[in-house]
Amino acid sequence: MAKDKKAPRPKAQTPKGFRDYFGAEVTERAEMLATIAGVYRHYGFDALESSGVETVEALGKFLPDVDRPNEGVFAWQDEDDTWMALRYDLTAPPARVYAQHRNDLPLPYRRYAMGPVWRNEKPGPGRYRQFYQCDADTVGAATVAADAEICAMLADTLEKVGIPRGDYLIRVNNRKVLNGVLEAMGVSDAAQAADVLRTIDKFDKVGEAGVRELLGKGRLDASGAYIDGVGLSEEQAEPVITFLTSKGADNAATLENLRGAVGESAVGAEGVTELQQIADLLAAQGYGPDRIVIDPSVVRGLGYYTGPVFEAELTFEILDEKGRKRQFGSVAGGGRYDDLVKRFTGQAVPATGVSIGVDRLLAALREKGRLTSTEQGPVVVTVMDRDRMADYQAMVADLRQAGIRAEVYLGNPKNFGNQLKYADKRQSPVAVIEGGDEKDRGVVQIKDLILGAKMAENATLEEWKDRPSQYEVPRADLVAKVREILDLYS
Amino acid sequence: MAKDKKAPRPKAQTPKGFRDYFGAEVTERAEMLATIAGVYRHYGFDALESSGVETVEALGKFLPDVDRPNEGVFAWQDEDDTWMALRYDLTAPPARVYAQHRNDLPLPYRRYAMGPVWRNEKPGPGRYRQFYQCDADTVGAATVAADAEICAMLADTLEKVGIPRGDYLIRVNNRKVLNGVLEAMGVSDAAQAADVLRTIDKFDKVGEAGVRELLGKGRLDASGAYIDGVGLSEEQAEPVITFLTSKGADNAATLENLRGAVGESAVGAEGVTELQQIADLLAAQGYGPDRIVIDPSVVRGLGYYTGPVFEAELTFEILDEKGRKRQFGSVAGGGRYDDLVKRFTGQAVPATGVSIGVDRLLAALREKGRLTSTEQGPVVVTVMDRDRMADYQAMVADLRQAGIRAEVYLGNPKNFGNQLKYADKRQSPVAVIEGGDEKDRGVVQIKDLILGAKMAENATLEEWKDRPSQYEVPRADLVAKVREILDLYS
Repeated sequence: MAKDKKAPRPKAQTPKGFRDYFGAEVTERAEMLATIAGVYRHYGFDALESSGVETVEALGKFLPDVDRPNEGVFAWQDEDDTWMALRYDLTAPPARVYAQHRNDLPLPYRRYAMGPVWRNEKPGPGRYRQFYQCDADTVGAATVAADAEICAMLADTLEKVGIPRGDYLIRVNNRKVLNGVLEAMGVSDAAQAADVLRTIDKFDKVGEAGVRELLGKGRLDASGAYIDGVGLSEEQAEPVITFLTSKGADNAATLENLRGAVGESAVGAEGVTELQQIADLLAAQGYGPDRIVIDPSVVRGLGYYTGPVFEAELTFEILDEKGRKRQFGSVAGGGRYDDLVKRFTGQAVPATGVSIGVDRLLAALREKGRLTSTEQGPVVVTVMDRDRMADYQAMVADLRQAGIRAEVYLGNPKNFGNQLKYADKRQSPVAVIEGGDEKDRGVVQIKDLILGAKMAENATLEEWKDRPSQYEVPRADLVAKVREILDLYS
Repeated sequence: MAKDKKAPRPKAQTPKGFRDYFGAEVTERAEMLATIAGVYRHYGFDALESSGVETVEALGKFLPDVDRPNEGVFAWQDEDDTWMALRYDLTAPPARVYAQHRNDLPLPYRRYAMGPVWRNEKPGPGRYRQFYQCDADTVGAATVAADAEICAMLADTLEKVGIPRGDYLIRVNNRKVLNGVLEAMGVSDAAQAADVLRTIDKFDKVGEAGVRELLGKGRLDASGAYIDGVGLSEEQAEPVITFLTSKGADNAATLENLRGAVGESAVGAEGVTELQQIADLLAAQGYGPDRIVIDPSVVRGLGYYTGPVFEAELTFEILDEKGRKRQFGSVAGGGRYDDLVKRFTGQAVPATGVSIGVDRLLAALREKGRLTSTEQGPVVVTVMDRDRMADYQAMVADLRQAGIRAEVYLGNPKNFGNQLKYADKRQSPVAVIEGGDEKDRGVVQIKDLILGAKMAENATLEEWKDRPSQYEVPRADLVAKVREILDLYS
């Protein structure tokens, strides 16, 4: 027979912008997701899991004038030519789910969802193309009590996963107020409005003077590049400045300033009233401005928001990759999107929700040393005689029966040093040894690997002098002795 | 301004072959995954989560002579023209992971993984294009003790998730034995060998006579269609029949028969010896043939298996969609695949593992009524006066503080009947009512909705006659009274 032409070896690599997660990284995330889901459920939200794949049509990312879907999503064509894509968030799918199943679902429909989302974006340091979100949304509730509740729940959630009060702040704004400001400015062109919103979003970075420049002729940025301005007159730009500087000493003062900023605009006034109601509801439930505060500088990038918007940021400082101090920043955000379901049904269905960036939140907790991993390696039963594998398996079975995580060494047992190196790499607390001599005498050797490692680090320490790191016990006492050592370290 | 041309409304539909999962379906799966992971961890396996997306090259599904990837996977091209695809199982990815990270990982590397996988296949009843798997694999262990361990762990896992002993059976075979039989038959052509394996796989369905026909000239099947045969002579086919009918009264008898079936073949003899070792190890640990048994009819479809293969099937009968009794069938399977890592590194790295079809296992438990959902709806605080939302939120806050799942009705409160209908749809155990009159008198009304529903079903039942389904209590006693009712039903 002719030999097949040899195919070149495939590269063992994750695709660009993706990564693998090992051990504690996986279990810590699972624990955080379970904790968040617990809070959401406690608030009355029910679980929903839609698939990772949606039609591009349902996601609303299809551009009808080109034969390729929009950038930002991973998309392909099904056999029947339907464009399909991986979900890019957990907000668009439930709008589709609600529209599809609305005859069977309760109204309001309160649901939570968790899982990976995918973005077809350029990866960067710490930015991956798959990451986890954990969302809660209320569909069919027009009242801002629904928005207030989500903000309160977000505060509870952050504290529950380990961010203490004072280390986070939830800032609330309202798109209607922004629209009122644009109306007061006389901006009606959609493109120009978008430019103004983008500029407002830069306030935290460039300050009042910078925003003035960007709204007018433009600005030379720190890198020396010239950024074109929106082209408004100074007079026209004034409401934006009034708006951006309207954060007062307390919510009452901020709201008063915002009323000034929106001028005669009816939608603006409505937005301010909604913020007032949210602030009142939260105050009545004891969520003060140390946790949730009205803040006009919050914009939120996504185009689908129609009312209140909110963002949770962590307020403590971390060191960035260049060793400079900076605030950790945003870990969650959300808002009201009253038109997403309407896309499908033609009927207005109000909705509001929050999305927690679980991977960023985990990174923050890790950064602060607040993730205390519960991972412990298994007890390793070593193999001295490969023909007695059944004996070693029986030991492991005894240990597991007693609730102890344990395994037999399954690699090549020839080199015993490799077995102990393996136990070390697995962070095993204990190794068990039974050679032919021990077998004959009915005993086993039990090595305390944690003590062993400490002694290796500092062999002169007095306190360990009288403590053996290896014990010989009768085979019948294997489980009891291992348990005794594990209890020392738990 | 010219008005934008209206885009047609998108269809609110899951893509073909995908579905949404609601409430208990999601939480029951999460609980099952956590239980399985618990067993895997207990056996010493560590968590790994690779991303849903792999390069087609790493998955090994790329056909170099066409510009489209193989069928079976969902694939697309990245911006740099790299073909990417959704993973179709949890076996190919860890082979890539091990090859990529082998300098940092312990050897053997024991890992478990769980999550959705995607198949670009024709969907059918109960067959979806996204489903969950939960796998455990040991990479770098050549000993069949690793295979035996995985079979034992699979038995433990099935019992732990609620399949009692006697309702499942793990059947073990060895690809080397199959290869030995082919050698004994003188079949060396790969295509013909594949045809023979496919025929063996049909033994459960067509029986000995059917297999004889299919190995020879062919067979008229039940639908009247003629199925072409493999074209072997009767004499050539004989070892297959010997092999297929070699299952004896116990493992020892089966192994003896298999030794006959492989004749002079060295690889066949090796396979039988490995099965012997597996049976001995399992027997020593107390896993008898009531749980794990040597069975020559197990083939396993995937091409990458090289040694022991195993399959767990549920042995109880269910009614199929046409009301006929049938066995539930396979819920898990696996085997040894010694060449998957070698694809990347050129070096042989033995590996073995198991994959549990979590969604099928859930379906089986549901079918048998063994999933007792712990889901209970939230207590619903109704809204009688929309201006007193803060009062209602305060009640809910009190209930939540006390650990009770609760929410305020956030829909339009105008029609009170809708609020109770909502509570009903949410399967709420309790509704709380506070109108203006109650507010003035400092009381709340508490409705026992579970009792109410029972009374509505059968209004004449004596036992409920003296039990009220609605209580009036002071506002201060709200939490205590709700707790009292909930305790009746827990």
